Amino acid sequence: MIKVGIVGGTGYTGVELLRLLAVHPQVQLTAITSRKEDGLPVADMYPSLRGRVNLAFSAPDKVDLTQCDVVFFATPHGVAMEQAPALLKAGVKVIDLAADFRIKDQAVFEKTYKIPHTAPQLIEEAVYGLPELNRDDIKAAKLIANPGCYPTTMQLGFVPLLKAGVVDAGNLIADCKSGVSGAGRKAEIGILFSESSDNFKAYGVSGHRHTPETVAQLQRFTSDKVGLIFSPHLVPMIRGMHSTLYARLTKEISNEELQALFVDAYKDQPFVDVMPFGSHPETRSTRGANMLRLALHRPDNGDTVVVLVVQDNLVKGASGQAVQCMNLMFGLEEGLGLNNIALLP
Amino acid sequence: MIKVGIVGGTGYTGVELLRLLAVHPQVQLTAITSRKEDGLPVADMYPSLRGRVNLAFSAPDKVDLTQCDVVFFATPHGVAMEQAPALLKAGVKVIDLAADFRIKDQAVFEKTYKIPHTAPQLIEEAVYGLPELNRDDIKAAKLIANPGCYPTTMQLGFVPLLKAGVVDAGNLIADCKSGVSGAGRKAEIGILFSESSDNFKAYGVSGHRHTPETVAQLQRFTSDKVGLIFSPHLVPMIRGMHSTLYARLTKEISNEELQALFVDAYKDQPFVDVMPFGSHPETRSTRGANMLRLALHRPDNGDTVVVLVVQDNLVKGASGQAVQCMNLMFGLEEGLGLNNIALLP
Amino acid sequence: MIKVGIVGGTGYTGVELLRLLAVHPQVQLTAITSRKEDGLPVADMYPSLRGRVNLAFSAPDKVDLTQCDVVFFATPHGVAMEQAPALLKAGVKVIDLAADFRIKDQAVFEKTYKIPHTAPQLIEEAVYGLPELNRDDIKAAKLIANPGCYPTTMQLGFVPLLKAGVVDAGNLIADCKSGVSGAGRKAEIGILFSESSDNFKAYGVSGHRHTPETVAQLQRFTSDKVGLIFSPHLVPMIRGMHSTLYARLTKEISNEELQALFVDAYKDQPFVDVMPFGSHPETRSTRGANMLRLALHRPDNGDTVVVLVVQDNLVKGASGQAVQCMNLMFGLEEGLGLNNIALLP
Amino acid sequence: MIKVGIVGGTGYTGVELLRLLAVHPQVQLTAITSRKEDGLPVADMYPSLRGRVNLAFSAPDKVDLTQCDVVFFATPHGVAMEQAPALLKAGVKVIDLAADFRIKDQAVFEKTYKIPHTAPQLIEEAVYGLPELNRDDIKAAKLIANPGCYPTTMQLGFVPLLKAGVVDAGNLIADCKSGVSGAGRKAEIGILFSESSDNFKAYGVSGHRHTPETVAQLQRFTSDKVGLIFSPHLVPMIRGMHSTLYARLTKEISNEELQALFVDAYKDQPFVDVMPFGSHPETRSTRGANMLRLALHRPDNGDTVVVLVVQDNLVKGASGQAVQCMNLMFGLEEGLGLNNIALLP
Repeated sequence: MIKVGIVGGTGYTGVELLRLLAVHPQVQLTAITSRKEDGLPVADMYPSLRGRVNLAFSAPDKVDLTQCDVVFFATPHGVAMEQAPALLKAGVKVIDLAADFRIKDQAVFEKTYKIPHTAPQLIEEAVYGLPELNRDDIKAAKLIANPGCYPTTMQLGFVPLLKAGVVDAGNLIADCKSGVSGAGRKAEIGILFSESSDNFKAYGVSGHRHTPETVAQLQRFTSDKVGLIFSPHLVPMIRGMHSTLYARLTKEISNEELQALFVDAYKDQPFVDVMPFGSHPETRSTRGANMLRLALHRPDNGDTVVVLVVQDNLVKGASGQAVQCMNLMFGLEEGLGLNNIALLP
Repeated sequence: MIKVGIVGGTGYTGVELLRLLAVHPQVQLTAITSRKEDGLPVADMYPSLRGRVNLAFSAPDKVDLTQCDVVFFATPHGVAMEQAPALLKAGVKVIDLAADFRIKDQAVFEKTYKIPHTAPQLIEEAVYGLPELNRDDIKAAKLIANPGCYPTTMQLGFVPLLKAGVVDAGNLIADCKSGVSGAGRKAEIGILFSESSDNFKAYGVSGHRHTPETVAQLQRFTSDKVGLIFSPHLVPMIRGMHSTLYARLTKEISNEELQALFVDAYKDQPFVDVMPFGSHPETRSTRGANMLRLALHRPDNGDTVVVLVVQDNLVKGASGQAVQCMNLMFGLEEGLGLNNIALLP
Repeated sequence: MIKVGIVGGTGYTGVELLRLLAVHPQVQLTAITSRKEDGLPVADMYPSLRGRVNLAFSAPDKVDLTQCDVVFFATPHGVAMEQAPALLKAGVKVIDLAADFRIKDQAVFEKTYKIPHTAPQLIEEAVYGLPELNRDDIKAAKLIANPGCYPTTMQLGFVPLLKAGVVDAGNLIADCKSGVSGAGRKAEIGILFSESSDNFKAYGVSGHRHTPETVAQLQRFTSDKVGLIFSPHLVPMIRGMHSTLYARLTKEISNEELQALFVDAYKDQPFVDVMPFGSHPETRSTRGANMLRLALHRPDNGDTVVVLVVQDNLVKGASGQAVQCMNLMFGLEEGLGLNNIALLP
Repeated sequence: MIKVGIVGGTGYTGVELLRLLAVHPQVQLTAITSRKEDGLPVADMYPSLRGRVNLAFSAPDKVDLTQCDVVFFATPHGVAMEQAPALLKAGVKVIDLAADFRIKDQAVFEKTYKIPHTAPQLIEEAVYGLPELNRDDIKAAKLIANPGCYPTTMQLGFVPLLKAGVVDAGNLIADCKSGVSGAGRKAEIGILFSESSDNFKAYGVSGHRHTPETVAQLQRFTSDKVGLIFSPHLVPMIRGMHSTLYARLTKEISNEELQALFVDAYKDQPFVDVMPFGSHPETRSTRGANMLRLALHRPDNGDTVVVLVVQDNLVKGASGQAVQCMNLMFGLEEGLGLNNIALLP
């Protein structure tokens, strides 16, 4: 059994890890930290876990995380980079669900997140935890930078096109929509029910933190300079992410060939579902499941290809992907504990 | 492996059976019928099942359900009573999720559902599939009448009070609220998003079909005449049911003794969670899970006891309960395939 | 033109007052105070008011509210009682949307709200602002205690029964459901979208602040001792309130006579709509409108009468009712500025 | 008073017309037709209209619409073109909220809507009812083709850029999101609450009927060939539309100059609100109001301009715009009856 610790278990990616790990056949939940909720049984905060998770939150200084085999950081950025060095030194593997190790260029990281990086020596070692693109590295990794939810959809949607060299890499547009849980479990006016229900809006259109991460990752797959416009929006639903990706075709290519690019890219990927050309995937088809679905369109048979990508932002976009990485890191079957079916309706 | 057939797999209780049974370790999905969707792959209607359920719907006359070990009827009332006799004769067990065999008094059934009963010889044999109250009978049953969603909450909430004889059985009030999926997957104006979102209303307050079923079942546990006011309401959420039950105390009893009645009644029931006295259970704590939670209140320490009961109407209120019955009927562990944790948030 | 000031304009009852008063033909918005948002244009916080309300919030000490003809307090309880004495002394009328002057018994107030009352000399003078029951007093009032949203529905639903003496006053049950805006515009986890969407729960069932207010008001209409069980619930919708009221009949009375009690009581009330017997009013039929609708039921023709009552909690349950009172206090047509039709769908 | 008839009053644009016209000071509602609901009081279908609209639906053959001054067609496409000729001949003005007269090229219309046009002689005469671009023609018009909801946002968002010649007209992308009421009041599975709540999806991405209408209108403002990718999406909210428009800048232009293009274009338009550069308009800021708000962005100061446009699809996107046209056609103040403020929250 893998002994698992979770730092920052009170947020949505934390409780989602608990939901997945509590029924994972090879995991023993060992410690969940929260400075603020020290001593509170986890199930008192999340009654869905009553009778299933018997741990209480512990203050960070009251628990020895080096007894764990792996520690997940379900924290805001800036926490993992403080604690990861000691854990890694003690032989504990680390999976960070935040941004601390996602960007390889330290200067870009510091400019984007507006804090100094306190563990720059680990940046290079960290593996970007997107199994569909980095599986072998993840298997060997000790430190995982779990991708952001938006970047997961953008990469899995754009990469087959970039690798094939059939689109203008400098003119990519990603119009993305996320459920409100993506904003986290924070006491903020803007994400109150009465503010965000029956409402739709964009945010961060002039510039968003996920752009540099995504551009850097996309750049790995093309020698042309990547240019990306990324517009996130807030959808009045709890979970779910829908990215509508636009790229200009630069070569003659049939719809069948386009489709084949994606089918081939993902034919052995258990958690990516390439739907028939012209389909419209729905976010709910992934609700609660570790699954990303996508479909291609070519409006009026012109020179623009549209890729529709959906996932559950808390599962394939966060905690499910992190468990998928953990499975790979520990030599387990990649989908262990991740086989539940989406909740529909 | 148990070979399972589903009649009427296109509705919400049907797809919920598929979600649960597709990952059930002892089940082999064998046939799913739909007159209207003959030939359509199930996953084309429900993309959440892509890659997980490879069956197609079959017209009823194209499939031999007697090859199954058990057949679920996820149909409107009136269907199971037509087909159950032949199946039972062929040695196939039957679980009806509709109302055909819930009411023991044929005249009451016919008055309530306004159709003649075509298999009256089976009414007596049918076992009411509420495991917490009828487990032994279910184990031996060949024909299960799966309870209605509302009646499940009313029974599990009122019965400990009635058995203890501490409340006025003639003056029970159940103010119940259901998510919209309880109305089924029917093309009706009243349950359109634009009609039922951001809205709340009661329906059927002057008289509802679930009242006779509930009264008859409650009557088993008291010699006083049961009187029940049942008011259903429609909540703008997909899944979830919340019943607020009111009873007048007729005996001196402390809050601790009240609580003990429920704790004792359900201490060995894996799918009933008695929360601390004074708690407010939330429907989402059961979303997607086969779990019913309840909590007691005594407003201003007066002579009224209030029982708050929540469940997912499609799981413990329908398909999950049906699988729980199946497990019992086939000698399996009662919770097999039912251990996933509620989706929260 | 009536010069109007609003203290505490940043909350939902505040912005709702602005929505109504900005188009009121006899009102000149003069001052809106907010300690925290001093200097911020109101329309920057509420873009719905862009081009319609040109005022900015002022810190309380920067504005002279005695220049107003009337001041509304859209504040938490405890504020109006501090400021009302000076305003009244200066000849300014005061309408408090909070609880400071709703309860005539000072001891009950202080026990319920857990603060000392700092203007006890005004309690007696204050008029409870429910026009359907107190119109003449309101016309002559200088200080209005605007009723709570729940109490408005309970009173207008129960009073005709109590006045007629046909129900057991000691055994009233009010199962009430409110949209989330009723919880106000506060940065609290529990009312986040991701916490309260697709979810339903009760709260305060063991005891709620609105009970003493309601009991005291109901008691005015019967010589029997009023006993009330009040259970509030949170509905995943922004606006709307639905109260399901239960009373036991103590006299022989036909359904027609019951209906006549209500039709007679409200036949001259422009903002109460008695629907046909057996109707199921929907909250959305009052969305944004100053209207309360109700309908009677008698389940299975027994001895329980059920009254279904709906309103928009922010309009007839708060700000609309306050404007209705203002109209009466200033000798205007009662419905001036309140004639917009509910937003449906 | 203007005598108004409405053909097809049972749908959402119909009831929205009723909501607006019932309080319009210069309108007398005269006739509302519905073949199916003949004789039903309008307020029985829409209880929000109880006490406010006393008309009943009439079968089309039971009412003489030529007694009206103006007739609105709130019908599916294909109805207005059958009935408009006789009405116009009788001197009655006609406002069609459907598509019959929106496309000037008959062949394109017939290809797009897959029906023959039965009144081609009126196509040329019909005026496209977008007051901000065609005010003078509307004033003189007898037959109005009210724009589609999506096209309204796309035109008001793109036209200032096209007129100024600063963007690549051949490479416009409109990623649009609509509330579910845009799909109408039809008994269809796909728009049930349980299907479209807590869900997000695109539809019609490969080609949508609103594209030809929009392209033809946009083409009026540029000599370059317009190329438009239009991707509509369904948002789980009742009302509201958000269009995210992307265009490539082809000239050096500062953000201030971009902003000035829009400020100048709409400075005298009462129902278009140009927000500060970099704002994120919310759909709810227009809920129930005849208002379109927009804001400009320039991500990372690159060569793409993003225009965010919001409106209520049923008001500025349909019925409110139709009333705005009516006001102009009858020489009334343009905003008469359209001055209510958006419902927020």
